Amino acid sequence: MITVQEAENRIAQSLESLPSETVSIDGALGRVLREPLRADRDAPPFNRSTFDGIALDYTAIERGQAAFPIAGTAFAGSPQLELTDSGSCVEIMTGAPLPDAANCVVKIEDLEIESGIAQINEDVPLSAGYGVHPQGSDCKSGQELLQPGSRLTAKELSIAASIGKAELVVASQPRISIVTTGDELVGVDETPLPHQIRRSNDLALQAALVAGGYDRCERFHLRDDRAETESTARSLVDESDVIILAGGVSKGKRDFLPEALEAIGVQKEFQWVAQRPGKPLWFGTANSNGRRRYVFALPGNPVSCFTCLHRYVLPGLDRMSGLTGADSEPIRLQSDFQFKPPLALFLPVRTSIDRNGQRWAEPLPFNTSGDYISVASTQGFVELPQEQETFASGDVVTFRPWLT
Amino acid sequence: MITVQEAENRIAQSLESLPSETVSIDGALGRVLREPLRADRDAPPFNRSTFDGIALDYTAIERGQAAFPIAGTAFAGSPQLELTDSGSCVEIMTGAPLPDAANCVVKIEDLEIESGIAQINEDVPLSAGYGVHPQGSDCKSGQELLQPGSRLTAKELSIAASIGKAELVVASQPRISIVTTGDELVGVDETPLPHQIRRSNDLALQAALVAGGYDRCERFHLRDDRAETESTARSLVDESDVIILAGGVSKGKRDFLPEALEAIGVQKEFQWVAQRPGKPLWFGTANSNGRRRYVFALPGNPVSCFTCLHRYVLPGLDRMSGLTGADSEPIRLQSDFQFKPPLALFLPVRTSIDRNGQRWAEPLPFNTSGDYISVASTQGFVELPQEQETFASGDVVTFRPWLT
Repeated sequence: MITVQEAENRIAQSLESLPSETVSIDGALGRVLREPLRADRDAPPFNRSTFDGIALDYTAIERGQAAFPIAGTAFAGSPQLELTDSGSCVEIMTGAPLPDAANCVVKIEDLEIESGIAQINEDVPLSAGYGVHPQGSDCKSGQELLQPGSRLTAKELSIAASIGKAELVVASQPRISIVTTGDELVGVDETPLPHQIRRSNDLALQAALVAGGYDRCERFHLRDDRAETESTARSLVDESDVIILAGGVSKGKRDFLPEALEAIGVQKEFQWVAQRPGKPLWFGTANSNGRRRYVFALPGNPVSCFTCLHRYVLPGLDRMSGLTGADSEPIRLQSDFQFKPPLALFLPVRTSIDRNGQRWAEPLPFNTSGDYISVASTQGFVELPQEQETFASGDVVTFRPWLT
Repeated sequence: MITVQEAENRIAQSLESLPSETVSIDGALGRVLREPLRADRDAPPFNRSTFDGIALDYTAIERGQAAFPIAGTAFAGSPQLELTDSGSCVEIMTGAPLPDAANCVVKIEDLEIESGIAQINEDVPLSAGYGVHPQGSDCKSGQELLQPGSRLTAKELSIAASIGKAELVVASQPRISIVTTGDELVGVDETPLPHQIRRSNDLALQAALVAGGYDRCERFHLRDDRAETESTARSLVDESDVIILAGGVSKGKRDFLPEALEAIGVQKEFQWVAQRPGKPLWFGTANSNGRRRYVFALPGNPVSCFTCLHRYVLPGLDRMSGLTGADSEPIRLQSDFQFKPPLALFLPVRTSIDRNGQRWAEPLPFNTSGDYISVASTQGFVELPQEQETFASGDVVTFRPWLT
């Protein structure tokens, strides 16, 4: 049996980077950027008015002038005007380029306009540069705005659009096969016999993968049959980058997966991890059609399965994609907790944030790892290390959120 | 000018609940549940073995028996067996129903099996109920497992699947039109002239809406033309539940939207909110084809637009959907901050969690509300109230995350 840390390390060492691909910006939401994005010009690209009002040369204000003849109107989207006479002004709209030689914008609320003359109200605070968003003040042409490894969310796509990246280089989506196993499982739309239960792991795994940005998933179900297990596993290994199996990896008489996987040439990297839930976790790799394939065989019990997905598979996919950033965070336990077996414990918790912004984790009453119903009231799990038995309220532990 | 709170209240009072619809569980990820989900039977539905091993009657152990003849094998997915002789045992697999009259499972690791006899190793801690996940211990038949108003994520879908809800009643998706305005804007794939900039608000708004669970979005662009603005607005009000406009609502000479919207019968509920950014925010309602329509006209500046989406539009959509739960949380400021104008301030912040699980917000160096580039390095914004000018490091304020 290996430790959680060793399991994590062995997986990380096995994983290779996914190939990159180019996608349209319209399809790039949630993808992992694989190129640096640089400004194609200054932002803003010109001295930009931040108000509706008049643009003028502030030196005229300094000279004591308060009434300005209007020499023209600058609209957003029209070419830059010139302020030929420093004693006049130009009406200007928000977002329009400041006329050449103008360096101050007076808001329309601070003016009276009559007969083509703009009269500035008394005691309006003004200065050189007031109302001006200066060219290049957000960034200079050529500046790196986003680094490879960023997840493309709304704010990143806004930047990509503004610099004209209609196409983006991103990590390709791994083809993921989600495979449930077990003769006790029937479909969601079937009525189970007393000794049967409905299949739910496949949907839960797929939903969490999609929430994590990995939507190229297909679902399969395997009966407890040695020959079928082997032939299906063979075709899945040929056609998938990542195979996630749920169930069939423990020591039961119909747990055919480990031997079937090894029979078709999947190299076992490890099995048995000192953790609860999820001790039977099996991980292996294969090569097929020149690409490396990864097989995560998770225990079939829903909580084990869901926890192992979040602890090992999703971080593995992020690593293959080149995503940067943390996937866990510190949190304080809200009550005492004891756990004696020499295993790391993944403990589902209800999180809360107190009125000071401190985050707390309330462990679920410990039932069994099959209790997927109470898991729905939790936001993730804390990882209690193997070396420690007793945890006090207020202790800081590591929290990982469920993906939603 | 109204306050942020009043703007929020007026929007909330205007909004009507979206209709419900029934969707397949396969398409339900991210939707808002509109019916309670109740257990269709006990969970687990039978006394379930949590190990691979042997099932027996614990009274035999109490009598001192350590070797048990194996009378059969219980597989997951096979009907329940009977333990006819309390001195014998049944081999059992994880997830299988415990035989009638058995009440204890001994793990396979704690046994030696030879010639059909299972011999329990010495000093194995056992008890009545050991290794048994009892029928109904997770929930009883009929128990409410999920309430209306839950967002359907992986863990909720797992429950829905397990109770056989192949179809679910959820809030319908509002049809959302995202409309950019302004002659200065060109497409992402175009090369802007010196006085032009590329359109990015539409993509950013759509991405955040999709991340928030609202993916029925279409994008449009309006030139600064009074007649076109009115005719396009008319057809959008007929065909959309929610129209989100970006730009054209301030006091500029080509800010045609407020008058065009009122001309086509959109009832203005308010304009001008005491906030920065986003002061020109305009909100109105209309009735068309028997359904209520909502028009949010946001300022065109990217940071204003993005902030107002998160502060008003997304919470509004959640309310229309019936989603329960908080959309903001307390956080501590990481540095002093001063803001004098009598406006509430929405301030983008970089968040961090210290090693004790305390969350901190570091305000961006305050530039102008057009600086969408530095917003990419933030995780959301804090809302500094209008009544206060000076904020000290350590002060607790309200944080809202960007949707990702």
